[in-house]
Amino acid sequence: MNEFVSAVQLGWRACEQRMAAENSPLPDISPPAGQGSGTLIAVSGGADSMALLRALLEWNLSAENDCLTGPLVIAHLNHGLRGADSDADADWLEETCQAFSLPCVIEKQELMIQQEGTSEGLEELSRKARYEFLIRTAQKYQCTRIAVAHTRDDQAETVLHHIVRGTGIAGLRGIPRIRLLAENLYLVRPLLDCSREEVVQYLKQCGQTFRTDASNADPRFTRNRIRHQLLPLLKAEFNPAVVQALQRLSQQAEEVTAVISEDVARILQRATLDQNRDTWRLDCDQLVEVPDYLVKQCFLKIWQEMHWSRKRMGFDHWQRLLELTRDGQKIHLPDQIEAERRERLLILRKLPARERA
Amino acid sequence: MNEFVSAVQLGWRACEQRMAAENSPLPDISPPAGQGSGTLIAVSGGADSMALLRALLEWNLSAENDCLTGPLVIAHLNHGLRGADSDADADWLEETCQAFSLPCVIEKQELMIQQEGTSEGLEELSRKARYEFLIRTAQKYQCTRIAVAHTRDDQAETVLHHIVRGTGIAGLRGIPRIRLLAENLYLVRPLLDCSREEVVQYLKQCGQTFRTDASNADPRFTRNRIRHQLLPLLKAEFNPAVVQALQRLSQQAEEVTAVISEDVARILQRATLDQNRDTWRLDCDQLVEVPDYLVKQCFLKIWQEMHWSRKRMGFDHWQRLLELTRDGQKIHLPDQIEAERRERLLILRKLPARERA
Repeated sequence: MNEFVSAVQLGWRACEQRMAAENSPLPDISPPAGQGSGTLIAVSGGADSMALLRALLEWNLSAENDCLTGPLVIAHLNHGLRGADSDADADWLEETCQAFSLPCVIEKQELMIQQEGTSEGLEELSRKARYEFLIRTAQKYQCTRIAVAHTRDDQAETVLHHIVRGTGIAGLRGIPRIRLLAENLYLVRPLLDCSREEVVQYLKQCGQTFRTDASNADPRFTRNRIRHQLLPLLKAEFNPAVVQALQRLSQQAEEVTAVISEDVARILQRATLDQNRDTWRLDCDQLVEVPDYLVKQCFLKIWQEMHWSRKRMGFDHWQRLLELTRDGQKIHLPDQIEAERRERLLILRKLPARERA
Repeated sequence: MNEFVSAVQLGWRACEQRMAAENSPLPDISPPAGQGSGTLIAVSGGADSMALLRALLEWNLSAENDCLTGPLVIAHLNHGLRGADSDADADWLEETCQAFSLPCVIEKQELMIQQEGTSEGLEELSRKARYEFLIRTAQKYQCTRIAVAHTRDDQAETVLHHIVRGTGIAGLRGIPRIRLLAENLYLVRPLLDCSREEVVQYLKQCGQTFRTDASNADPRFTRNRIRHQLLPLLKAEFNPAVVQALQRLSQQAEEVTAVISEDVARILQRATLDQNRDTWRLDCDQLVEVPDYLVKQCFLKIWQEMHWSRKRMGFDHWQRLLELTRDGQKIHLPDQIEAERRERLLILRKLPARERA
């Protein structure tokens, strides 16, 4: 089997392993039985997604017993942002899929472009519309996977973007390999270990043409400046293997973040006395020996579990909360949260409506 | 007191706190009693080190009771790499210190420059010579601190350099705030939270001149390309506050690395059966529930403690060692290390000379 197709298979299996490790409700991964285990491939028509499509198709046609992708369905959302170009891409994709006898779902959905909107706002808007369309279509065609074509280069660009914009260790993980989108529906990224160069080489080998989206060169998008300006500079002037370096950093950040999460779960389990809809009670004696960083992460986790607003909590709020575990009486926090210390007890609670100002 | 001097005081206290937290043998930090608690300031004559010198001098002269720096001694190593310029810098510094009545130790030590040597090799060579000189001088003058003038900008440059070159989470910590150099002698960096802009502004305020090292603009040095090319691009095109973003990332990496170290120490304590000069025996049952990342970190720690060569261990070696904790019998590793599994026991040992090939 072709080298690239083998790499995609490896990538696919890495996704399946991650799903098993997450211990989430696992969709049926037995070979296709006509319905309920298909894969929706999100295809723009660009090089990356065409390589993903061709590789999964080749794998499926090779009729190996371990084929896990099930029936393939192609999905494409035409935002119409590039006028006739967008329509031509959609038409081209439809014809290409017909030649492969693959079902292809194309939807045209013109975005309301506000003149004053930023390019980043527009990117976010089209991303949301695309995922809404993909999930809806996957569910309609009984698919349990949506495969997208992000590569190692996309990963490096994302990690670099996060670093430059400002991030903690968790943000260094970059693009996740898998993500649960809805019940029994996972987003998977089987190309995450493949390079853009390998993609282009594979397409050449199998004579597969693809479309070029002119907006990918538009420097108004931060992503494009990272791709066309920053990364080439880093490769030329500092390290030709910078993409691999960023990928390894992302993998280590993933591992370290998982360790921290387990630490937090263990500490919270030991320190939590009880909790209900509005209140979480902690035993501060259990937090005495815990490093400040982990205590703060425990509070972040509590806020997440209780659906209290983390956005409104600033650095100072978390710091005061940390100090309250060592000493103090009572503090008031955003979102009507009150933290009260009584001896070794720390009571966190959201004030009921009648007590609120 | 001047704002910058206050910031340097805060930086100094942060160093002292870190030393206390490290639980290392702490030098006497009571006010100067004539000997044994002075500070050696490493001064090149450039803006950063002149600001450090002036700020510590101003603090000392203000005669506050909490003055912790003790008597000040200035030290400067003249490598003579820039010929007459280097000598002029040294002369200028000597005169400046005389005007302040500060003791100033200047040594001339011409480096053997090999024509075929790289600029990075030369940088490393001069760094080594400088630290050797600083430690020797500090000990001679009974100083317990060597203060160097690295700023927040140096920190950002270092973190960025590590990222681009390739690093794990530990390498994101960048320049440490303190470092134990010898018994009762710490390297401290009180300017690590100050920006280069604040430095320049302070020098202007107090009318302090400084020297400009022409080699700081030499693009053969990676550091200079990061400073003069990469960071200005990131500030202009991506994030004006990128230096602060990198500083925060470095702080979080420091905290996370400390948590991981504690986890590793705890796991090793539980899993270690016994150890002696050549052998370390582990109970694999204690490692079953431990994430792969932490198991590998435990082995790294063992190699460090045993002074076994970590450089010769590649990714595959650590991976095979990890797998041996789950299953297997015996593997041979670099540096004449043997890892043998006997039931739940894992025996790591360095083969004695007579058993070696």
